[in-house]
Amino acid sequence: MVELIPNWLQQRAFLTPQRIGLVFNEQTWTFHDMLEIVNDYSSRLHSIITSTDTKVAVLMKNHPDTVWVLHALQQLGIEIVFLNNRLTVAELHYQVKDSKATILLYDCDFRQTAEELHRFTNIPFYTSEDILGMKSTTFQIRENFILHDVCSIMYTSGTTGKPKGVIQTYGNHWWSAIGSSLNLGLHSNDAWLCSLPLYHISGFSILMRSVIYGIPVYLMEKFNPVIANNMLISGNITIMSSVSNMLSRMLNELGDNVYHENFRCMLLGGGPAPYPILQKCKEKGIPVFQTYGMTESCSQIVTLAPEDSMEKLGSAGKPLFPAQIKIMNNGEIAAPFEAGEIMLKGPNVTQGYFNLPDVNEKAFQHGWFSSGDVGYIDDEGFLYVLDRRSDLIISGGENIYPAEIEATLMEYDGVLEAGVTGIEDSEWGQVPYAFIVADKQVTSSELIQFCQERLASYKVPKKIIQVEELPRNGANKLQRRKLPQLLVDGDIS
Amino acid sequence: MVELIPNWLQQRAFLTPQRIGLVFNEQTWTFHDMLEIVNDYSSRLHSIITSTDTKVAVLMKNHPDTVWVLHALQQLGIEIVFLNNRLTVAELHYQVKDSKATILLYDCDFRQTAEELHRFTNIPFYTSEDILGMKSTTFQIRENFILHDVCSIMYTSGTTGKPKGVIQTYGNHWWSAIGSSLNLGLHSNDAWLCSLPLYHISGFSILMRSVIYGIPVYLMEKFNPVIANNMLISGNITIMSSVSNMLSRMLNELGDNVYHENFRCMLLGGGPAPYPILQKCKEKGIPVFQTYGMTESCSQIVTLAPEDSMEKLGSAGKPLFPAQIKIMNNGEIAAPFEAGEIMLKGPNVTQGYFNLPDVNEKAFQHGWFSSGDVGYIDDEGFLYVLDRRSDLIISGGENIYPAEIEATLMEYDGVLEAGVTGIEDSEWGQVPYAFIVADKQVTSSELIQFCQERLASYKVPKKIIQVEELPRNGANKLQRRKLPQLLVDGDIS
Repeated sequence: MVELIPNWLQQRAFLTPQRIGLVFNEQTWTFHDMLEIVNDYSSRLHSIITSTDTKVAVLMKNHPDTVWVLHALQQLGIEIVFLNNRLTVAELHYQVKDSKATILLYDCDFRQTAEELHRFTNIPFYTSEDILGMKSTTFQIRENFILHDVCSIMYTSGTTGKPKGVIQTYGNHWWSAIGSSLNLGLHSNDAWLCSLPLYHISGFSILMRSVIYGIPVYLMEKFNPVIANNMLISGNITIMSSVSNMLSRMLNELGDNVYHENFRCMLLGGGPAPYPILQKCKEKGIPVFQTYGMTESCSQIVTLAPEDSMEKLGSAGKPLFPAQIKIMNNGEIAAPFEAGEIMLKGPNVTQGYFNLPDVNEKAFQHGWFSSGDVGYIDDEGFLYVLDRRSDLIISGGENIYPAEIEATLMEYDGVLEAGVTGIEDSEWGQVPYAFIVADKQVTSSELIQFCQERLASYKVPKKIIQVEELPRNGANKLQRRKLPQLLVDGDIS
Repeated sequence: MVELIPNWLQQRAFLTPQRIGLVFNEQTWTFHDMLEIVNDYSSRLHSIITSTDTKVAVLMKNHPDTVWVLHALQQLGIEIVFLNNRLTVAELHYQVKDSKATILLYDCDFRQTAEELHRFTNIPFYTSEDILGMKSTTFQIRENFILHDVCSIMYTSGTTGKPKGVIQTYGNHWWSAIGSSLNLGLHSNDAWLCSLPLYHISGFSILMRSVIYGIPVYLMEKFNPVIANNMLISGNITIMSSVSNMLSRMLNELGDNVYHENFRCMLLGGGPAPYPILQKCKEKGIPVFQTYGMTESCSQIVTLAPEDSMEKLGSAGKPLFPAQIKIMNNGEIAAPFEAGEIMLKGPNVTQGYFNLPDVNEKAFQHGWFSSGDVGYIDDEGFLYVLDRRSDLIISGGENIYPAEIEATLMEYDGVLEAGVTGIEDSEWGQVPYAFIVADKQVTSSELIQFCQERLASYKVPKKIIQVEELPRNGANKLQRRKLPQLLVDGDIS
């Protein structure tokens, strides 16, 4: 059956060579330009890649160099292992090792991290500048992308706290792009603002859509609400992917300005939007499309159209056309409004986690993926997400898994138990708070320093509170949702 | 891999129940309405379908009843055998028999044809009115459409003159719709005017796109240039599929009027557009997208954007994103501008002809389909079609295969040889002219009457000319392209 599509970048550069594919600061590249640069990168990278190399880890920032590298690896048929550049050396080391990546490419911006990381692994490391010094060698251009081939691996944590590599095939990315276009439409003037990290599916999926749709990506190195606002006011941008925290900061900066009428879609992921933000967007005529998705679904899988956003407040919407959702409760499909686990199905959903057959066996049931999230579907088919899996904390669009922080805290001498939960925060949506039971005197500051050495800064608990005992259920399972009850006046900063 | 998509009509009616899906004269139906009617049709048709029925032949006109029937057969997992309602009883009989259809559904408009046809076959015939009298029975709703399942069979003639049933899977229709949307875009106000017959891929593909995209089809029973113009002036229609003859008639009727700015695509198939028509469209601001496609590619596979239509005059454009073309000449890939056979590849291309393994073996080479058409690709990748396969005549958008008419003529007592070719015609683009060699006196009028009894009226030669001998090459193969040289003054009417 259908298992291949012409090599996306090649096909795009062939079909519409003169269309703009990438804009970064004041520079623009057509798809023809992009293919030329990417072919050059491919031919150089080809010189360092041996037949035993199948995965290359990438520790880079949002920058055109990263775009060339990501496309070049696809041209070479090499799987991309995306590394979150906010992680600590210990976290990065785990992912590099687990993924079996045999080469690492990094931005000079992360030289210090890379050098520290290199002490733990003997695979070759190259900077993006090194690539241009490699000798150019002939490589076989792939006529087609085979949809079941692995394109990328992105790590996500989970209930156990151990990050798992989500396998994303070319087909997953393709169907994600197609499902999105069938829902959001596709206009000849479309241009997508990417200020989310390329190492996240929210960012990388925009790059994939760009070549599939033939539209430009406006890439921002770092999100900046003033610059983003100006781009949306200018009329150059028609779609932007965002999370609540970004949108909130943009609204705060917007003043009396309004976005250009060309701007037709603010795609909002990373948890439900607070009502005041939606209300303000409505007043400002900003069309917000709330979405629900995850690394495992290769970006959005459920999306709420703006016309439903007020009536279906708090809903994530309905599935994209090629996808399906259902709610399972005690082994049965739940009735409307009955809560249960959200199950996903569709060609954009991952085949599983890298090298974790046991986890995969549990994650899939008759072709349905267990999201681990809890929610319900109303009588019209709209999904409401009640709880992200394993009490996921979403802070400024980054996923934080309590179990990972708890495991770190419990490594500290004297900490017997730890429980972490997300506490509302006006700036970040949520921030992690930790509750510990200790058998000796430990200070909050020494624990925070311990975490800072081991965890990305956004995962470090904002506050650590020592308690007598943690709330547990009959099976002695930690009840994270009850942790906030342990707070006393003054605990919330 | 990806082999299924949620049942299209069910999914569409679930996702956007209140959107309009069909407009016919003054009546409109939402997708919710459509699903209700189609479910009713399905439950009734289910009562007459036994487990041995896998194919139902459909002899119907452009009408909502036909839409319900076509969707209902998909809901029931029954393959649709499309019958061209302009064919003669003998032609229809061949297709019904060849396809192994075990039931035939027809419009009351074709009662006479159906009754005559029924004399040759003992399969049950039902009118669309009969369906509403059938008893409603429970049927299993198909959760998914499996992409490699056969959806429809459409007959096309060929070099041998014997019609062949083109197998069209759900996947072929899906990918055709996706390829088209990636090229033409998809707007929330899109509405597609369908005045081409539903039994043609040009018409049926619009029905498929409608449910996949979630946009209305404006269905016309018969093409009428005045009514079509009014619809394009009204602003309700954004896309229309047409052939040169239709477009020419519309331009003739248009006068000083212009189409609404909402109208964004005149998709023009059935052979290259004459320059004066393109020029007039340009003056009128009508965005013409010329296309090349066929029943075997499930509608367009190569399309020319309006911005290229003047510079690339006569070109059919570039492939849709998921598709590829190449030119083969003497077993080698042809150089730019070198003519050869046009080869097609892509997930929208048929798997082959029904029950013709020998034909299929020749039709495919390493996954590429031999179109039989001759053309070249220029240095920028634009396709130019020089000759439709087997000297195909395209008359008012209908395909006419000379071999089929020649075979009919040679059945007539006294006709030794026959050669048919297309002659330019201001109204129809081309019309068939026949040249015969006879060993006794035969008159043109008796031959034409003979053809009228056996061939659809558009296939009946406009003129029959008796000659001494037909032009043949060294291998004694008829050289149809030289036939016009046999014309003498006064032959062209």
